[in-house]
Amino acid sequence: MALRGSVIRALLRTQLGHTCQQSRAQSVAVLGAPFSRGQKRRGVEHGPKVIRDAGLIERLSSLDYSVHDFGDLNFHHLEKDEPYMDVKFPRSVGGANKMLSGAVSRAIGAGHTLVMLGGDHSLAVGSVGGHAQQCPDLCVIWVDAHADINTPMTSPSGNLHGQPVAFMLKELQDKMPDIPGFSWTKPFLSSRDLVYIGLRDVDPGEYHILKDLGIQYFTMRDIDRLGIQRVMEVTLDHLLARKQRPIHLSFDIDAFDPSLAPATGTPVNGGLTYREGIYITEEIHNTGLLSVMDLVEVNPVLGANPEAVETTASLAVDVIASSLGQTREGAHASIDSINSTRLTLSVADFLVSISLQFSVV
Amino acid sequence: MALRGSVIRALLRTQLGHTCQQSRAQSVAVLGAPFSRGQKRRGVEHGPKVIRDAGLIERLSSLDYSVHDFGDLNFHHLEKDEPYMDVKFPRSVGGANKMLSGAVSRAIGAGHTLVMLGGDHSLAVGSVGGHAQQCPDLCVIWVDAHADINTPMTSPSGNLHGQPVAFMLKELQDKMPDIPGFSWTKPFLSSRDLVYIGLRDVDPGEYHILKDLGIQYFTMRDIDRLGIQRVMEVTLDHLLARKQRPIHLSFDIDAFDPSLAPATGTPVNGGLTYREGIYITEEIHNTGLLSVMDLVEVNPVLGANPEAVETTASLAVDVIASSLGQTREGAHASIDSINSTRLTLSVADFLVSISLQFSVV
Amino acid sequence: MALRGSVIRALLRTQLGHTCQQSRAQSVAVLGAPFSRGQKRRGVEHGPKVIRDAGLIERLSSLDYSVHDFGDLNFHHLEKDEPYMDVKFPRSVGGANKMLSGAVSRAIGAGHTLVMLGGDHSLAVGSVGGHAQQCPDLCVIWVDAHADINTPMTSPSGNLHGQPVAFMLKELQDKMPDIPGFSWTKPFLSSRDLVYIGLRDVDPGEYHILKDLGIQYFTMRDIDRLGIQRVMEVTLDHLLARKQRPIHLSFDIDAFDPSLAPATGTPVNGGLTYREGIYITEEIHNTGLLSVMDLVEVNPVLGANPEAVETTASLAVDVIASSLGQTREGAHASIDSINSTRLTLSVADFLVSISLQFSVV
Repeated sequence: MALRGSVIRALLRTQLGHTCQQSRAQSVAVLGAPFSRGQKRRGVEHGPKVIRDAGLIERLSSLDYSVHDFGDLNFHHLEKDEPYMDVKFPRSVGGANKMLSGAVSRAIGAGHTLVMLGGDHSLAVGSVGGHAQQCPDLCVIWVDAHADINTPMTSPSGNLHGQPVAFMLKELQDKMPDIPGFSWTKPFLSSRDLVYIGLRDVDPGEYHILKDLGIQYFTMRDIDRLGIQRVMEVTLDHLLARKQRPIHLSFDIDAFDPSLAPATGTPVNGGLTYREGIYITEEIHNTGLLSVMDLVEVNPVLGANPEAVETTASLAVDVIASSLGQTREGAHASIDSINSTRLTLSVADFLVSISLQFSVV
Repeated sequence: MALRGSVIRALLRTQLGHTCQQSRAQSVAVLGAPFSRGQKRRGVEHGPKVIRDAGLIERLSSLDYSVHDFGDLNFHHLEKDEPYMDVKFPRSVGGANKMLSGAVSRAIGAGHTLVMLGGDHSLAVGSVGGHAQQCPDLCVIWVDAHADINTPMTSPSGNLHGQPVAFMLKELQDKMPDIPGFSWTKPFLSSRDLVYIGLRDVDPGEYHILKDLGIQYFTMRDIDRLGIQRVMEVTLDHLLARKQRPIHLSFDIDAFDPSLAPATGTPVNGGLTYREGIYITEEIHNTGLLSVMDLVEVNPVLGANPEAVETTASLAVDVIASSLGQTREGAHASIDSINSTRLTLSVADFLVSISLQFSVV
Repeated sequence: MALRGSVIRALLRTQLGHTCQQSRAQSVAVLGAPFSRGQKRRGVEHGPKVIRDAGLIERLSSLDYSVHDFGDLNFHHLEKDEPYMDVKFPRSVGGANKMLSGAVSRAIGAGHTLVMLGGDHSLAVGSVGGHAQQCPDLCVIWVDAHADINTPMTSPSGNLHGQPVAFMLKELQDKMPDIPGFSWTKPFLSSRDLVYIGLRDVDPGEYHILKDLGIQYFTMRDIDRLGIQRVMEVTLDHLLARKQRPIHLSFDIDAFDPSLAPATGTPVNGGLTYREGIYITEEIHNTGLLSVMDLVEVNPVLGANPEAVETTASLAVDVIASSLGQTREGAHASIDSINSTRLTLSVADFLVSISLQFSVV
């Protein structure tokens, strides 16, 4: 039994040894980022408010979390922010992300699981960046209709909400010009540590980058072919088979079909069903490794009517709650006991595999 | 050939030997149960009317059935019906179910296939109970967003439409207090003879019961994982592999997604698609064993507009018609000839299996 | 290498040797057929206009095609066109199809890929017929809620939009009376060269014909069972495994669920999802063999409001664009380079299989 105990301790060090991962389950922090300068349409800065109004805090509290609402970041308004090349509002976007990055890093350092409410998807530069400061070995699951991986040179629009991934990837470092406002950040993510789910509107330059870097991505066509169960199996295997590590889930509400999430800026037909979105987040929760999630691009100004806004915001709450353990099965045991069960099981599996190896001898 | 004849007769005794099953296919009886005291929201007592108004009788007649509309039961109104423990309207619900139980038993005894139109789902106590009086070896397929298996002690609401299964199960007998109004009934169903499909809102106590009794159930997550084809395969195998026997289908309209069935009392997002619902009922029809079906919880008062009510009621008609043989394939042969074909086939299969066993010797 | 060159040329003659197939990819012709006499409801003659207004030509141009809009055919109005047996407007339908047949034949002969915009589905007689004049070995994929294979004797309505396939099939020749207006055409298609996808409302006589001729068809139930990926695999294998040949896609917008395509004459619940429809057309495009497609039965008069019409027409544009190479993956390479890649690959496969056969010796 001494052996078994030391194996367990070794396993814990190997699999969960990062301070960024410890005791995260009990406490969830919510942070609003009311920012819209990564794109052209006003209104997405009200995303945090409508998602909270749809009952987010109450819902998370009902899941037995200690919920800390950190309120909204207070971004500075820049009077003068001329485009750089074609890039719109570079200093505003850079500055907001710098502030967000610090806030995310502190929340993770304090042991919370973090939910970041956007705002537009340019905020991922700071959100994933701040997360990576604490957890350099994180991996990213990007659920979105768009790849958001244009560089300033390939972007058809110049909007930075279509470019955040390009700022993160080490492999694209030499493709990125020095954009004013972004001197504080450096690429920190390898392309093999990123998986996309839900793509269906990919720009030509983006397609070239995805193929060139060999990034693992699943378009809606792939989901049609493989089914969402298999897509999640491959996704988690791709990211976690080598080692267990923190997951950053960056969820753009436009991954869903526009009939489900109408109040968003760049809707594309043929998106995720409600059940596929919930299945994705259930599977991520079940890893026990979710560390930070973004929920971005809810824009209440773009809903055709109040019902459209409410539908979209409620969907955002469902997605966040499902990512954090709300279940359709009705497993209402506390998160702690679920997590400890899961840990025990994987330890048992580990021991079995060891004993099998030994028994060969 | 004498041998073959006697084998067929033996097979008929074994597989279809219950009087409750004979010559059922030709005649369908429709019975309305305009009752709403199993829950709080008025209006579900109008379910039978709107389902008939949506063309149920005409549709069933077009399927070559002899259709007998028995009209609606006339439930007694109790002036005084105080809660017992937290249970609301126990004597009203008990009395209505006693009346319904007798009516169902008589209809089955008379050789009809029965369609019971609710009303709320508390009526299943009487519907399944009356069916079981004639066919004690029946099995139950419960299609619902909810498990409806709370006991009076675990129920968060005290509404009896969330508890009918608890009154049926032998395994829960010692968990059930003596509720006024229910002295006429005793548990009659084993938990292994029940399968749930469509669950996505399961209370903590219900989850405990489902797990504790090892009940076979498929949540929407399971349908997402396995697909509806596999879910039905496992369901029918679980219930019928040991022996062919009468099926009671208890279909709560809220199993469907609220976008398809908005006029109902406890809608839950992420439900069955139209095609999944139809597939479930096609598969049940194809067994040739459907004996009674409930269609419950259509509540016209809760539709946001007349179109919502019409959509929900039309869906109910489609589900009932599909359960009784309406097909997307266009097999418009008469039910008799279809059934006799099916019987012949299963006899042939049986003979093949016998001959295989003999040939081993 | 001389051997290899001659093998390639032989392969080209074998697989793509028909003039009807050569150099089709670069040029797309669009032809409107504003015709409605194949059924009773006025308005479907405006289909070509609303589909163009939804941006068809611009969308196809964005796919790097040279797009030729041939405008609308100008059908003659017959003052007197009495029913023959129960068949409504036989001379009008026959005459329109004769004109359409000639136009389709000329467009194919001129090297275009053709998109025919209906109009009602009776136009398929001329569209497929004209195509077959140039490409006698074509195959047909018929995507529709209905089989449209009634003969004048089996048709419950007498409307010719429910009968076009019966005019095409050699196997039904002796079942077809001499309908006035149709003396110009003879059956040209074998039943094994036709596959249906999406059926869910099949008349009794049609069911008998489908079964009797052993036609390969996939109802919505089959799609529920098998999944759309497998359905397309079997479809393309059935039609193309023996040899590569031109595909005629005849797409009735009512194959889609009425919630997606409300502005049509004979909607049936439980239809294709948007993603299934797109997947079907992506797979057809990926064969490189699409030669003619019909998009029929968009009826703007039947939309409950302008949004319903716009939704239906936009869906038609998406389906056509996807059939012609618009992709969810973002492969924005030119069609030429994609096609030449595909050809190269299949030649390579062929050479590999030859070398394997030789290496056995």
